[in-house]
Amino acid sequence: MYDRIKGFRDFYPGEMAARRQAIDTLEETAHRYGFREIGTPALERAEMWTDKSGDDIVDELYAFEDQGGRHVTLTPELTPTVARMVVAKQQELSKPIKWFSTRPFWRYEQVQQGRQREFYQTNVDIFGSSEPEADAEILAWAADALTGLGLTSEHFEFRVSHRDILGGIFETYGDDVDVEAAIRAVDKSDKLERAEYHGLLADAGLDRGDAEDVADLIAGGDLEAVVEFADTERVTAAVENLQDVLAAAEDFGAREYCTISLETARGLDYYTGVVFECFDSAGDVSRSIFGGGRYDDLIESFDGQPTPAVGVAPGHATLPLLMQRAGVWPAEEVTTDYYILSVGDTRSEASRIARELRNRGHVVESDVAGRSFGAQLGYADSINAETTVIVGERDLENDEITVKEMASGDEVQAPVDSFPGDVERPTIDDFDA
Amino acid sequence: MYDRIKGFRDFYPGEMAARRQAIDTLEETAHRYGFREIGTPALERAEMWTDKSGDDIVDELYAFEDQGGRHVTLTPELTPTVARMVVAKQQELSKPIKWFSTRPFWRYEQVQQGRQREFYQTNVDIFGSSEPEADAEILAWAADALTGLGLTSEHFEFRVSHRDILGGIFETYGDDVDVEAAIRAVDKSDKLERAEYHGLLADAGLDRGDAEDVADLIAGGDLEAVVEFADTERVTAAVENLQDVLAAAEDFGAREYCTISLETARGLDYYTGVVFECFDSAGDVSRSIFGGGRYDDLIESFDGQPTPAVGVAPGHATLPLLMQRAGVWPAEEVTTDYYILSVGDTRSEASRIARELRNRGHVVESDVAGRSFGAQLGYADSINAETTVIVGERDLENDEITVKEMASGDEVQAPVDSFPGDVERPTIDDFDA
Repeated sequence: MYDRIKGFRDFYPGEMAARRQAIDTLEETAHRYGFREIGTPALERAEMWTDKSGDDIVDELYAFEDQGGRHVTLTPELTPTVARMVVAKQQELSKPIKWFSTRPFWRYEQVQQGRQREFYQTNVDIFGSSEPEADAEILAWAADALTGLGLTSEHFEFRVSHRDILGGIFETYGDDVDVEAAIRAVDKSDKLERAEYHGLLADAGLDRGDAEDVADLIAGGDLEAVVEFADTERVTAAVENLQDVLAAAEDFGAREYCTISLETARGLDYYTGVVFECFDSAGDVSRSIFGGGRYDDLIESFDGQPTPAVGVAPGHATLPLLMQRAGVWPAEEVTTDYYILSVGDTRSEASRIARELRNRGHVVESDVAGRSFGAQLGYADSINAETTVIVGERDLENDEITVKEMASGDEVQAPVDSFPGDVERPTIDDFDA
Repeated sequence: MYDRIKGFRDFYPGEMAARRQAIDTLEETAHRYGFREIGTPALERAEMWTDKSGDDIVDELYAFEDQGGRHVTLTPELTPTVARMVVAKQQELSKPIKWFSTRPFWRYEQVQQGRQREFYQTNVDIFGSSEPEADAEILAWAADALTGLGLTSEHFEFRVSHRDILGGIFETYGDDVDVEAAIRAVDKSDKLERAEYHGLLADAGLDRGDAEDVADLIAGGDLEAVVEFADTERVTAAVENLQDVLAAAEDFGAREYCTISLETARGLDYYTGVVFECFDSAGDVSRSIFGGGRYDDLIESFDGQPTPAVGVAPGHATLPLLMQRAGVWPAEEVTTDYYILSVGDTRSEASRIARELRNRGHVVESDVAGRSFGAQLGYADSINAETTVIVGERDLENDEITVKEMASGDEVQAPVDSFPGDVERPTIDDFDA
């Protein structure tokens, strides 16, 4: 027997039904916002990552040489692909470009809870607007998607910041400070002891007293204090932009889910403006559930015309963990509206009933395995059939069938000619006992 | 600039919208039949194919060694994966197992119209029933799915046969005939000149007269003549099974789409019983659009308990070609219910309207790029907005907005407090001109 590859999941129907509900909610929300679905390849040229990405992602690529000698890779993320697609049709596409898609990505990583080597994301992006309304619409979509899943502000929060705030603060310490290293220290701060965190800042070139002061400033999250402290155009502009985005998020109904959190830096180096991460507000899990932000330079780095961009990508491995803790993960089971149980030479009549119910959009199974009455009833139970319609040879001689409510076990006879009849979704209550 | 890999497609929103409609129709039909969605990995151990598949498929694998030294491959088809999944849970799963999924597969093939190296299929399978009703349900699902797409018996037909009929006929010629080679000749016959076809049969060991006779017998498709000619249990049983499947298909509403076609052999060697291929009945394209059939031995070959199986897998590269010829391929364009055009300091009110309309399930866009009246109207047009709601500063001073029907250009004023109001989907007709 062959085994599954480590880090790759099989999804059987019960779990898949729950996942499908979650994915559908995210996609339907995107659809209502006017995001448009796109379809993208699983393979791209490996150079799209090896030329410019950080080492981490390059080390995790499922890259290989194809039969035509191309150096290709399974895509570890969507952004470079959509950048390529925007550049390929930048003249034709009317702006803003609003796209979404749900699909798997692949990274050769350490497997742990909520992290597989094959993982699904719903990517939602806007290209062609640098206005705060675009950032806010991404936040609003994410908030609507999560509340659509049954989550509330008790369950999640968006920790929002702006890339230039940390950069601008550390810049003020002069050339001796390694700004990137300092930002990486802040990014990790919630996983570190205080002294360890200060030590990393000191390693980045800050003296000990400055390290403590700046750590407090950042943790405080007081935007006015930050502006006053840095006193540079870069920081002032970043704070203003962040405030504009939050004001737009207020109008869009998403402000209540946002907290200002200057520790939020986002690891990926292509972010350029407002960034945010979604966290469990109960704090049960310190890891970010997903994140997003503005990446205005990426399209140009793919030889396109300068095109501002902002996006987010909830993952379907961590989202279920949050939903389970909040008690809103859907039941992992299949559901069935009707099972049509056929006994004896009644297939023709049973099929008519099944077809008419299906034409009304109901989920209907009938016997395809030639089984006994008891075996069929057990099967109907196993697929959570709500109603079983029993089409028996003797009943049919009296032009009758039996309608059985599976939960109660109650059943009534009904005239075969009037089933399913005019009622959209007939149950035992529609027939006299 | 990076280019796309040959044989891999980008799907932009217009084309994707049409594809999504087609995929949704197939999946919703499967859902109504009680097929359950599953999720499956893109990568499997390459041995799942190299151990037992034919050379053709092995030559086309995107296979490579992963960072852990595993010999893996992008999956070229679904069947071995679902076989593995059935075997892994064969005790727990209640039978019949009815599964479906839509996803990409990958084969390093010659690229041509309707054939890419990355291609999408909707796989629909039943495990655990050897009854003719199972074969017929697969045919019925396929027929309902295609008619759901707007196709009729004028556009498509299922050419149905049984693997044992050809095998049983050629067996009667004794050991000198290479039965596999003879079947391969028949499989290709519709692409061959008559003499060439007879020649291939002769190469397989038939003498010239027999080759002509048997070619005529097969082309005739007369099941009684075939039974009489072969006069073996194998052929008699195969013909009976085929007739039983067609009788069940009659009850299930699919018989009218089926024609008996003994030339239909299906290349893949794992088929064991009834097989069928969907063809364009107008005959514009001689290639099979998709196919399916019974494969009762596969699960056992994966070290599972003997488990009969039958399935089908329409592909989303060839189906559009058939639909386009039939004139039922959906318009390749995006649609939008409302564009909310905001001018001046009206974002708050415009956002309220957008949110209320979205809450009703409508597709609604609003300005996220800070653009002028004219630019916004042009954008609303480019996304095919049905109605544009103009929220202007001066109008708002009079507590009014403007509702504009994009097709006619007609517009009316409406009180802002009563928009969207109680009407589920307000249009200009709901307000006095």
